[in-house]
Amino acid sequence: MLRRLFLHHARRRHHSSFSASAASVPLSTPAFAVFGANTGVGKTLVSAGLAAALLSSPSPPVSSVAYLKPLQTGYPADSDARFVFSRTPALLRASSSPRATRLVASCRTLFPSPAVGAEAEPLHESQEKVLTYGGDGSEETKVLACRTVYAWREPVSPHLAAEREGMAAGDDEVRGCVEQWLLEECVAEGGEVWKLLETAGGVASPGASGTLQCDLYRSFRLPAVLVGDGRLGGISSTLSAYETLMLRGYDVSAVILEDRSLSNDKFLLSYLRNRVHVLTLPQIPEDPSDDLTDWFFESSSVFNFLKDALQSFHSRRIERLNSMQRKSKDLLWWPFTQHNLVPQDSITVIDSRCGENFSTYKIKDNKMMLVPQFDACASWWTQGPDSNLQIELARDMGYAAARYGHVMFPENVHEPALHSAEVLLGGVGKGWASRVYYSDNGSTAIEIALKMAFRKFSLDHGILSGGEKNIKNERHIQLKVLALNGSYHGDTLGAMEAQAPSAYTSFLQQPWYSGRGLFFDPPTVYIKNEVYNISLPQSMQHDPQVSRDTCFSSQAEVFCKTRDKSSAADLYLSYIKQQLSEFSLSSNSEHLAALIIEPVIQGAGGMLMIDPLFQRVLVSECKSRKIPVIFDEVFTGFWRLGVESASELLGCLPDIACYAKLMTGGIIPLAATLATEEVFESFKSDSKLTALLHGHSYTAHAMGCTAALKAIKWYRDPSTNLNLVTDHMKLKEVMKYVD
Amino acid sequence: MLRRLFLHHARRRHHSSFSASAASVPLSTPAFAVFGANTGVGKTLVSAGLAAALLSSPSPPVSSVAYLKPLQTGYPADSDARFVFSRTPALLRASSSPRATRLVASCRTLFPSPAVGAEAEPLHESQEKVLTYGGDGSEETKVLACRTVYAWREPVSPHLAAEREGMAAGDDEVRGCVEQWLLEECVAEGGEVWKLLETAGGVASPGASGTLQCDLYRSFRLPAVLVGDGRLGGISSTLSAYETLMLRGYDVSAVILEDRSLSNDKFLLSYLRNRVHVLTLPQIPEDPSDDLTDWFFESSSVFNFLKDALQSFHSRRIERLNSMQRKSKDLLWWPFTQHNLVPQDSITVIDSRCGENFSTYKIKDNKMMLVPQFDACASWWTQGPDSNLQIELARDMGYAAARYGHVMFPENVHEPALHSAEVLLGGVGKGWASRVYYSDNGSTAIEIALKMAFRKFSLDHGILSGGEKNIKNERHIQLKVLALNGSYHGDTLGAMEAQAPSAYTSFLQQPWYSGRGLFFDPPTVYIKNEVYNISLPQSMQHDPQVSRDTCFSSQAEVFCKTRDKSSAADLYLSYIKQQLSEFSLSSNSEHLAALIIEPVIQGAGGMLMIDPLFQRVLVSECKSRKIPVIFDEVFTGFWRLGVESASELLGCLPDIACYAKLMTGGIIPLAATLATEEVFESFKSDSKLTALLHGHSYTAHAMGCTAALKAIKWYRDPSTNLNLVTDHMKLKEVMKYVD
Repeated sequence: MLRRLFLHHARRRHHSSFSASAASVPLSTPAFAVFGANTGVGKTLVSAGLAAALLSSPSPPVSSVAYLKPLQTGYPADSDARFVFSRTPALLRASSSPRATRLVASCRTLFPSPAVGAEAEPLHESQEKVLTYGGDGSEETKVLACRTVYAWREPVSPHLAAEREGMAAGDDEVRGCVEQWLLEECVAEGGEVWKLLETAGGVASPGASGTLQCDLYRSFRLPAVLVGDGRLGGISSTLSAYETLMLRGYDVSAVILEDRSLSNDKFLLSYLRNRVHVLTLPQIPEDPSDDLTDWFFESSSVFNFLKDALQSFHSRRIERLNSMQRKSKDLLWWPFTQHNLVPQDSITVIDSRCGENFSTYKIKDNKMMLVPQFDACASWWTQGPDSNLQIELARDMGYAAARYGHVMFPENVHEPALHSAEVLLGGVGKGWASRVYYSDNGSTAIEIALKMAFRKFSLDHGILSGGEKNIKNERHIQLKVLALNGSYHGDTLGAMEAQAPSAYTSFLQQPWYSGRGLFFDPPTVYIKNEVYNISLPQSMQHDPQVSRDTCFSSQAEVFCKTRDKSSAADLYLSYIKQQLSEFSLSSNSEHLAALIIEPVIQGAGGMLMIDPLFQRVLVSECKSRKIPVIFDEVFTGFWRLGVESASELLGCLPDIACYAKLMTGGIIPLAATLATEEVFESFKSDSKLTALLHGHSYTAHAMGCTAALKAIKWYRDPSTNLNLVTDHMKLKEVMKYVD
Repeated sequence: MLRRLFLHHARRRHHSSFSASAASVPLSTPAFAVFGANTGVGKTLVSAGLAAALLSSPSPPVSSVAYLKPLQTGYPADSDARFVFSRTPALLRASSSPRATRLVASCRTLFPSPAVGAEAEPLHESQEKVLTYGGDGSEETKVLACRTVYAWREPVSPHLAAEREGMAAGDDEVRGCVEQWLLEECVAEGGEVWKLLETAGGVASPGASGTLQCDLYRSFRLPAVLVGDGRLGGISSTLSAYETLMLRGYDVSAVILEDRSLSNDKFLLSYLRNRVHVLTLPQIPEDPSDDLTDWFFESSSVFNFLKDALQSFHSRRIERLNSMQRKSKDLLWWPFTQHNLVPQDSITVIDSRCGENFSTYKIKDNKMMLVPQFDACASWWTQGPDSNLQIELARDMGYAAARYGHVMFPENVHEPALHSAEVLLGGVGKGWASRVYYSDNGSTAIEIALKMAFRKFSLDHGILSGGEKNIKNERHIQLKVLALNGSYHGDTLGAMEAQAPSAYTSFLQQPWYSGRGLFFDPPTVYIKNEVYNISLPQSMQHDPQVSRDTCFSSQAEVFCKTRDKSSAADLYLSYIKQQLSEFSLSSNSEHLAALIIEPVIQGAGGMLMIDPLFQRVLVSECKSRKIPVIFDEVFTGFWRLGVESASELLGCLPDIACYAKLMTGGIIPLAATLATEEVFESFKSDSKLTALLHGHSYTAHAMGCTAALKAIKWYRDPSTNLNLVTDHMKLKEVMKYVD
């Protein structure tokens, strides 16, 4: 496992368009993102009202509010930061503060577009005003810091303004500024520091690069305040915006909307009950000359309620995060884990995932933080997708669940099951497979493969006969597998039987394990001083002349088919023949009824690369003896080795192969066992009892097949960022670490 | 299986608020639903333009367009049906038809609210006009039938209007009218018949009952034409509306929006590329006096393109549906299925699921139809939820996938895994379990349970000793299970070993099967003439006096604890003791290291009810002998028998129990094995090798745990429609069919 972590770290990093890079989020300073159900629903009014409510909050006292508008258009005529900067103090003055308060308010625009022009100059300069208000006595200081990052002149969507005014703002730049702003310490003391980020337009409005608002800020996953729409049709746009935020993994802390006497609030209140607060603001005066003083005064109680709601939302969130290590230590039972060896504070609390990075909860020098952590072993090699595909898959999962729920499979068909079968047969199964048998995970896919192989072998070798598949003297027959030492094929008791004895197959872990196989020591490949070397097992080291064939200057040479004529090939073949004949001599009722190998690389066994020539010779010898060949591609499948199927590298084909892990884009369990038509035919008869009896409640569930369909096509699409898949494990990198 | 189908059919039917009842949809007459990204985006203009384009379509010729507005407010001032009725003919006259055409257009309102008043009377009467246009020669007749179903006076959301004007329109009534309209034959001949349903407001606007538009019509799943929003913010509202439709399982055939020179269309075109057509309409004149003739003229090419897009969308859909039986016959390999016995035309093509009903594609008297089909065996007992929960789950699946993707489990924790563990331990595990071990399906949950039990037994009985778990003479020890004939615990080779020999365990299906257990014949319960009878196995029938204790007048009596003192209890106990001692005499190195039973009901074994007294006596005897007790609740768990856990009925508790199926609300694979702290402790030591080594790539995946969390809480909530779960299998009904 450690080696795998290391390996995974070793690979190049790539990020696609909005694939969010690592982002740190401090949690000691509460931060919320203000999203809109549409444009012009009052995000800025809510920000100002909320800022005032926070700064006048008695308990817990708030000493500072930092407001950020990353993307502003229509500037300088419109400036949401300026509005908050100019209006909030007035609201505070109105609020009855018990103590004399000194407010230091500032407003600043970092990057105005060239088109903004000179007359707006002073606005980009830091503006600051100081005012004192409230009762007398000892004076306290509060801070209101309003910032605009990018500002364009035209009052259009940022992606248009950026294009027309020639000032781009890349996603990574924007996120960089946001992260910096989140991490900024605030001078003010004696109270909480709050941060409000106001998005542009609606939840799915494009940013400067065209990335949607909800995707642009996803890596921070700030809790959302959704400003709803009180107008006719506003129920629909508010609920749709809410669902768009959910489809990005956001938590919505509150929905707040203007009352346009259409009772949108009442409906939303009942529809969203038990999920999120719904607050109502009085109608906003439409007269542009109205300075909204009265409106803000009327609204102050609502903003106070919103403030309370956000404060309790934040503290509940912190509470949950703080309790997770203890609770998981008490309630969970992890696989492969000796709980005695896991100290509570070493448990990783994962708040979310964005592409290849986890967002984990950590306490760093007494500060609560969400810290990015690279998913170093690709969550057991299930992960490949970047955050683009993650969002695509999330939407597809919602669609598949809504369209199908679950559909029992036998004698039924639905589009995801059929189309993913077509994609599998046209890809990893191309040129040999004609049937897809779905199951849940790698282990069950292997057990199904064994049942397939044993049936085919039994028919080919006269153990079973005729359509009725009559068997001669049942239980005397013992079917075994031919496999390699160091291989791994899953954890179910049946799959374990196909694995050579190891520390993990003892009575302690596998009370029923007997090891039903003949297990070979394979020759392996490693790199030393840029030379590829074959390391032969003891059992083969007697032949001196082979040494010529054990060093190669390139990877291509190692895989080259010309080696089939080499003396190494002869050595391998004679070794295999000898082992097989010894076996058949020693056993009367035992048969080697299947060959099962992980092509090219043994994964869990330690990332060992097997000499492809040896596997090729082994496969062809078994085929000549009518021993069905199983490729376990659960780990190697779908570009994990840089090709869709490892058999492309190996240069030979199986009769049966197993797939899982990356197949669904790393998001949901699904496995498939592919087989040739000959294997399929061996189960045909007129008796139901001859069918392959292995299924699970959720065989070929719609969500899994839908994910496979999307993921496999995505992997194949040259325009997508495949490095994220292949770089998880480059052959060269593997071999670096096996010498 | 047949019995299960029957059983499932036998139960009462319930439907919750918008739980859609069965709906038939003819596919020979193409039908589309016009949805809006918001209100006032031009749904009706699009309907009229599309109707005209269809009626003037040269090939394939369209003889008739039926337009339906189920819910109209602001009536009679506003009437979308009237608009389509009055404008479409004008557009047709403008279009150059090669042949003389006679158009019979009608407009009708079925249910105006009382508030609509008398002066609107004529409008409710069927209006009809006939016009002739186009070239001369033989005349063809076309039909345009416009209907409004419910009409309210106030120009507000239907749910408000319905309330204020006192005319309700229940979901089932509305859907009834829509289904009738879809099934209506149209008189016109010599061309296709098209149907257009125009929804009210935005995609998520409430209908008269408060049910959202997208939910109200879901059971028909008509392909959607989404009218987007060209205004500022329109990109966001259009994409959010699109996602809301996806979260209901709709296919969006085209997005069409007005050009407000903000290039919303260009952005949507690139964002939705390869997914859905995006069409642009010229800006709509704002002058109310403009009769839009010029606008429609300008737009005619767009509407023709839209018409072509919908026609090809429809024919591609039909093509796919028609090819699915053949393709699945060629590519798929179904579990438990003898493919020779499955004629191609008997394969069920499932287009979608809504709650408990599939929508299946059938050809009935030469008509292509989507026909509702009740999911009679609840898709192998995974289903319970109605369509309400299905939508809730779909949204949650999107959220979980977007927030987490997948997170590798060991030594990690995320909220769904932790919180679903809490819910499990507070429910089915209440009073005994303290640990949750997640896996993928019932079979793996069973294998994990066996490994748990064997470890505990080995320690308690000195087979393993000390923290180091040293083992004395390894392989001489043979651990077996105590189980009941007729039981079933899953299909993996390991789980099968815990099952008594049967037709399904022969060499043909399970080449490695040996049957590692001692299997008892259990006494069963059946009803005859309203009397509950116990039927004793041969081996117990010698004792005459027991007959007194084998008839009961009520179910309660059968489960009553007082029976623990009955002579039947004595009989059972002596039988069990005798069997156990015979076993231990006959075997030296063999141990019965676990009891495994399906509490109360044996599911796959044939829906047999076991005498609860017998299981109770068996459990207590095993506990007294320190043989760990496993309950297999994969089938019985989560209210399948009317209680959260079957152990509530049985009146005794296990040491280990397995859950799956209903746990996730029937939507996604996940299983859990619960255990007592004592069982958990038996795996503790300082060596990693003593850990429980059984995991899968997707252990405790976020989507599965999120679904379990939502589903289990939903089952428990008294306000939700639990009948859908419990009625799948009422004990009484079970017993009806076992005599």
